[in-house]
Amino acid sequence: MNTTNKSAIVLFAHGARDPEWAQPFRKIKRLLEARQPGVAVELAFLEIMKPALADAVAKLVLTGYRSIKIAPLFMAQGGHLKNDLPKILDDIRAGHPGVELTLLPAVGDVDPVLDAITDWLVSATAG
Amino acid sequence: MNTTNKSAIVLFAHGARDPEWAQPFRKIKRLLEARQPGVAVELAFLEIMKPALADAVAKLVLTGYRSIKIAPLFMAQGGHLKNDLPKILDDIRAGHPGVELTLLPAVGDVDPVLDAITDWLVSATAG
Repeated sequence: MNTTNKSAIVLFAHGARDPEWAQPFRKIKRLLEARQPGVAVELAFLEIMKPALADAVAKLVLTGYRSIKIAPLFMAQGGHLKNDLPKILDDIRAGHPGVELTLLPAVGDVDPVLDAITDWLVSATAG
Repeated sequence: MNTTNKSAIVLFAHGARDPEWAQPFRKIKRLLEARQPGVAVELAFLEIMKPALADAVAKLVLTGYRSIKIAPLFMAQGGHLKNDLPKILDDIRAGHPGVELTLLPAVGDVDPVLDAITDWLVSATAG
């Protein structure tokens, strides 16, 4: 199967000891897969949970994907996204020349998401 | 000024060393204040950044608020929200009898927010 022109995305989250913590990310993965059956979606985590980002990317590259978006599902830009993630991406890029990795903004940098959070808080405080 | 029947909400986030990290939460605060001028909005943080949740609540109580919503702006439910936050809320309640504190779900438990994140990721992968 030629998948070189197909898109893939990795949802990259912090990770936690509590298994339940991953539920929202699994739900977003299911929602994305339902909306875009042709786009491969993988989860990956910075700490504690598996797989690591490098392993999720390696799996996609092995399957033939050459253009992979990385979506950091973090509330905001801090040390994890500014310092840790660039190093991880540099290592991944060095191991997969010819694979294009595109980093998306953090959740908290996306205005429509902030609007949705605001809508929720307006309804919660009105109740 | 009688504010006992007015609503207040505290946006409770993790905190980080990088000052820029707080920007999305400040933006949500501004959006909420614009939408609901009558609702007091405070920010508070679990770690590193100030004020702590207890200080934000104390400020609102001093101003006359008796019914305060706590919105944990965390991506998911883990140890911070399941273990740390209940203890913090118990301590706050013990210090402010007669004040009603209502805990809202985490961002990742709110379906319209997950839908907005999914919409964003669909447009990002389509691009």
